[in-house]
Amino acid sequence: MRQAGRYMPEYRALRAKHSLLELCRTPELATEVTLQPVHRIDVDAAILFSDLLLPLEPMGIGFDFVKGEGPAIDNPLRSEADLARVRRFEPRESLAHVLEAIRLVQTELGGRVPLIGFAGAPFTLASYAIEGGHSSNFAHTKALMYGSPKAWHAFCALIADLMGEYLVAQVEAGVNAVQVFDSWVGALNARDYREFILPHTRRIFERLAPLDVPTIHFGVGTGAILGEIAEAGGSVIGADWRTPLDEAWDRIGPGRAVQGNLDPTVLLGPVDRILSATDDVLARAGGRVGHIFNLGHGILPMTPVEHVQLVAQYVHQKTGR
Amino acid sequence: MRQAGRYMPEYRALRAKHSLLELCRTPELATEVTLQPVHRIDVDAAILFSDLLLPLEPMGIGFDFVKGEGPAIDNPLRSEADLARVRRFEPRESLAHVLEAIRLVQTELGGRVPLIGFAGAPFTLASYAIEGGHSSNFAHTKALMYGSPKAWHAFCALIADLMGEYLVAQVEAGVNAVQVFDSWVGALNARDYREFILPHTRRIFERLAPLDVPTIHFGVGTGAILGEIAEAGGSVIGADWRTPLDEAWDRIGPGRAVQGNLDPTVLLGPVDRILSATDDVLARAGGRVGHIFNLGHGILPMTPVEHVQLVAQYVHQKTGR
Repeated sequence: MRQAGRYMPEYRALRAKHSLLELCRTPELATEVTLQPVHRIDVDAAILFSDLLLPLEPMGIGFDFVKGEGPAIDNPLRSEADLARVRRFEPRESLAHVLEAIRLVQTELGGRVPLIGFAGAPFTLASYAIEGGHSSNFAHTKALMYGSPKAWHAFCALIADLMGEYLVAQVEAGVNAVQVFDSWVGALNARDYREFILPHTRRIFERLAPLDVPTIHFGVGTGAILGEIAEAGGSVIGADWRTPLDEAWDRIGPGRAVQGNLDPTVLLGPVDRILSATDDVLARAGGRVGHIFNLGHGILPMTPVEHVQLVAQYVHQKTGR
Repeated sequence: MRQAGRYMPEYRALRAKHSLLELCRTPELATEVTLQPVHRIDVDAAILFSDLLLPLEPMGIGFDFVKGEGPAIDNPLRSEADLARVRRFEPRESLAHVLEAIRLVQTELGGRVPLIGFAGAPFTLASYAIEGGHSSNFAHTKALMYGSPKAWHAFCALIADLMGEYLVAQVEAGVNAVQVFDSWVGALNARDYREFILPHTRRIFERLAPLDVPTIHFGVGTGAILGEIAEAGGSVIGADWRTPLDEAWDRIGPGRAVQGNLDPTVLLGPVDRILSATDDVLARAGGRVGHIFNLGHGILPMTPVEHVQLVAQYVHQKTGR
């Protein structure tokens, strides 16, 4: 999950001078933001500061971030003809600034902690392109998915090809692990996931397999489809806080690491609640090899930095790192 | 789930002349809207047209509906002092117009189909009052819940008292069953649900127990806590479409009816997809006594009326009613 953000004063100071997209598109700034949590919080890995939506622009889907409202797509895709107009691109050219940021971050990190890159997965990227921004019901997305399955599959296959290649380019540029975010795919039940998403997401992981880097596969509200998500791929499967970690592990099955799953709102405080909820996650992980302690979703802007620091220190203390 | 709404031309015609709150607060209009789906669609029960938020106003929490954005609370509750200012009220006085609508609807229905009343449950009502409207993360709500547990419990106990009494009044006015909507409680994991919600929601069902009417308990995204929701109460437990109905039934346990769980976006079409998804729900119900076929959440405004009619007819045909 993105570590940097509005909860850090040093990030807000940069955002006062630059837009979110400027931070993402300027390698020196993206590097600075990537390193902010590494300096502040005792994290075990750095997460590249970037945005899931960056690949949309070279696909011909313009967008911007609207203050207080999140992403806004210029012309949401609503028909088969719209989907057919989406362009293929070469990540090493169109997203060269991301790869440059990776090289800069790795120089700065000097091996202190590994660096995690990421990209969006088919359902989540498609839903932004089709809905035009955040959605509570994904009605337009599902209407196209159910109503135009051929165009849907072609669109998702293209997204999978592009994101697979983009992640390979990130690994070549130096990231030590990659995360595939299908943040909103929990809106689908297992039957629809298997038909409309699984084959495409699997292609991303198949493209990454020869590179032998850890791959993390994450979504929110995916309790009912964790088995299918694991089947699609990922050496690490992420779980949000809704499903107890031991149950999530059972659903994911053996042979995978599991990342999760503290409710990010717990970090709002108070401290005794933060520690007891962290204890609960650790107890359910039960010391299993392959547990990556993490939040179940991104850090909220109103989170006190010292609470994030506290959890990192506490987990290290409890797990003896 | 609300059956009437913007997907029906006759509803849009009324809404062109009246606000949503006018429809809810005028017994004759609420009656007319309640009956619209009974006339149009072969449903087995009528659902009172009303809104979860109506009780907020007599609690001293003013609100309105903002076009295109949903509910907006005038002064969201954000502190213990705010929670302490919330007022107790007598539903038979403050919400007399709802009870009058129930009497009018029952006169019109003349026993053709039963009438279902409803009220909001503690987490969902509290979250509207605290967030000020819809929320994607319930950060303010959970911050108060974790940070001020005593004030939280007092507030939820008050909500439970009031909603219990409101539902009793609805039964006395003539509804044949009641639904308790904890629509957004799926944002909590089992541990938090058990500590912060279960005792309060249980009070509502305990208040209703002597009346011997069917009680439906519903939330969205509750796959991981269906067992706890059943434990809180309800002779019928609702499930959304994310959890397959057979698994939902296992989690809920024996001795309850189960309501669900077609994804409402499936109704956007096409017809073969609507029928196959309906078949899947019915197959997972497996002809068990106590299955109430329903959508997994409310009907979307862009849904074609004929698709709703089709599903009602198809389910009746397949189940031999």
